[in-house]
Amino acid sequence: MSFTRGFPVAEFETRVANAQHLMRQADMDALLFMTEREFTYFAGFQSNFWQSPTRPWFLILPAEGKPIAVIPSIGENALRISWLDDVRLWASPNPADEGVSLLADTLKGLAKRYRRIGVPMGPETHLRLPANDVVALKAALGSIEMADATDIIRSLRMVKSEREIAKHKHICGLVSDAYANIGNIVTAGMSERQILAAYRLDVLQRGADTVPYIVSTAAQDGTDDAIRFPNDRPLVAGDVLFIDTGAEIDGYYCDFDRNFAMNRASDATKRAYDLTYRATDAGIAAARPGARACDVWQAMADVLASGGAQGGGVGRMGHGVGLHNTEWPSLMATDQTVLQEGMILAIEPGYDFAPGRMMLHEENVVIGADGAELLTRRAPADIPIL
Amino acid sequence: MSFTRGFPVAEFETRVANAQHLMRQADMDALLFMTEREFTYFAGFQSNFWQSPTRPWFLILPAEGKPIAVIPSIGENALRISWLDDVRLWASPNPADEGVSLLADTLKGLAKRYRRIGVPMGPETHLRLPANDVVALKAALGSIEMADATDIIRSLRMVKSEREIAKHKHICGLVSDAYANIGNIVTAGMSERQILAAYRLDVLQRGADTVPYIVSTAAQDGTDDAIRFPNDRPLVAGDVLFIDTGAEIDGYYCDFDRNFAMNRASDATKRAYDLTYRATDAGIAAARPGARACDVWQAMADVLASGGAQGGGVGRMGHGVGLHNTEWPSLMATDQTVLQEGMILAIEPGYDFAPGRMMLHEENVVIGADGAELLTRRAPADIPIL
Repeated sequence: MSFTRGFPVAEFETRVANAQHLMRQADMDALLFMTEREFTYFAGFQSNFWQSPTRPWFLILPAEGKPIAVIPSIGENALRISWLDDVRLWASPNPADEGVSLLADTLKGLAKRYRRIGVPMGPETHLRLPANDVVALKAALGSIEMADATDIIRSLRMVKSEREIAKHKHICGLVSDAYANIGNIVTAGMSERQILAAYRLDVLQRGADTVPYIVSTAAQDGTDDAIRFPNDRPLVAGDVLFIDTGAEIDGYYCDFDRNFAMNRASDATKRAYDLTYRATDAGIAAARPGARACDVWQAMADVLASGGAQGGGVGRMGHGVGLHNTEWPSLMATDQTVLQEGMILAIEPGYDFAPGRMMLHEENVVIGADGAELLTRRAPADIPIL
Repeated sequence: MSFTRGFPVAEFETRVANAQHLMRQADMDALLFMTEREFTYFAGFQSNFWQSPTRPWFLILPAEGKPIAVIPSIGENALRISWLDDVRLWASPNPADEGVSLLADTLKGLAKRYRRIGVPMGPETHLRLPANDVVALKAALGSIEMADATDIIRSLRMVKSEREIAKHKHICGLVSDAYANIGNIVTAGMSERQILAAYRLDVLQRGADTVPYIVSTAAQDGTDDAIRFPNDRPLVAGDVLFIDTGAEIDGYYCDFDRNFAMNRASDATKRAYDLTYRATDAGIAAARPGARACDVWQAMADVLASGGAQGGGVGRMGHGVGLHNTEWPSLMATDQTVLQEGMILAIEPGYDFAPGRMMLHEENVVIGADGAELLTRRAPADIPIL
């Protein structure tokens, strides 16, 4: 399958121009970002170096022109080969002044008109620098205000371009192939941990760059947990194996799960699978431009309720997918986000169908003009027996 | 090679007791943590769910007794099977009150004596919750102070137990084997990206759980960059391939690199390799209980200076290794940390030996009573030719 890495500079220029438009509407002189995904989104910069918690990195979008990188010296070359021109360095590590003075000086030079800097401070964001340095930065900025810019980055990142959608499609197809192959990987007596390790290798061998999110849990009739680490108990007949995969290529994720019954499936399992399958269909059908996130949730909740399901502990029935495995919006009763063409969603109904047993299904779709288009190969209508 | 996962409860009890001792000395009623590594360290809780930025998680160490988890409902089962007893849940996602009220109520119930809660706010830490929620939490806590607890968690995590050292030893040995095998993986005409993908698979097949940090860069005579993503240029004769690996098993990392010359090595490469190799020896020899981090740095800097090296852009010559690939302390001129038995260090001298060309070496050691013991298999004294 052909796959094109990266983006033309025009794509980054569009992202920056859109951000600058929203920034001006919000009376902000600049936007300040410090997390991996914003560096990827606006600068095209990718590195595993984000794994190291030692050094903060800062990216600034001024009101006009290209982003400015304010980064530790170790990143100099990596940023110089990006499309940015203005890369400002401090010698790091320097715990006594870990970039704070250089960052504050840069921001003060930009915050002339509104004296306001936009920073994501809302749901699903955090400031990636020490709390003491947040205090020092605010002090250095004096009367310049730091205002919440969550809505700006959220509205931009929720809607994907054709090139971004192509990357999602690629990773969803690749993991769909891996799920179709699971019968060749899982053999009698394997544990959750062994299955996870073998399955991870298979996904990587098929071409995923990394598999940062991967769950493999099993219990009689249905899984007991959607997020825990695997254990070493060998699977036995009647167990339902739950696998959830957040694999990534060129920065873009899939996030979808599958269920498999070992040797045989109980009637309880079959009923739960069927109801959740139909709820997924309803969620996919409801995910159209103009519908709200809560409408999609309601469509799934109605199907589950028709089967007597009371909901479960996962807390929502889907979410956005992008540069993270989970992003805004949330498919839940209180999320009024209006769906738009180009959004990528995980449609993820689930419920606790017996004490300590849950059934979760998940597909990824892109919202098109006429409704949702599947990016994943739809799960089988009946639970596969391994 | 035999490998034991997890820890007996006694290990967690010791960690908590040590933290509580330091907490009382610092007049703190409780410690508040919210990042993955502290959940692993004190609760033994591991999950890939940290990949999802949607929900914060909170772990509280009271002055006495077991830690208290204040977590989103999706984590209930995973924490209930841990050694903790007190698991408090909120229905999440709930952007209007993402755990803040429950967390504040819990802290208020504990902060009776000193009215001070310790939170890591210093170097290499950050608060993993939205900045708006930090403000809301402080408001809800009223006159209860949040004080910096970086020194407490830093002093605990820097010194490893025998069981922790065994995990480091295991992953260092496994990656040493992978480096020894690199000649069987790299073939003529492969690109950095292809080498990285093949090498990652090899490390996983040898038994690493994950390889979150992996770098594969190459250029004529020496690498041009220690952190950038790989590109698609086929390697040619005279290129030096630099590979750096932060692989992990059961939560514990190795972090060390190797250099390989394609077909032939220039005299400049050989000289740079030799000088850096001798600097590494000097660093290992200097890493003894009672020496300071800056002393180890000085020993390496002296060797490099004797060869005319001016230093480079990486900013330090080593660091701690543990539940992250890089941790406190930093081997640099300004770090006065006194080395203790049980510390794991990356000894990592490097320098820019030609314009745009760097040479970096790295080994992992544990500080024993009599000095540093290698956890990695020492790199060859001459650069291997592939």
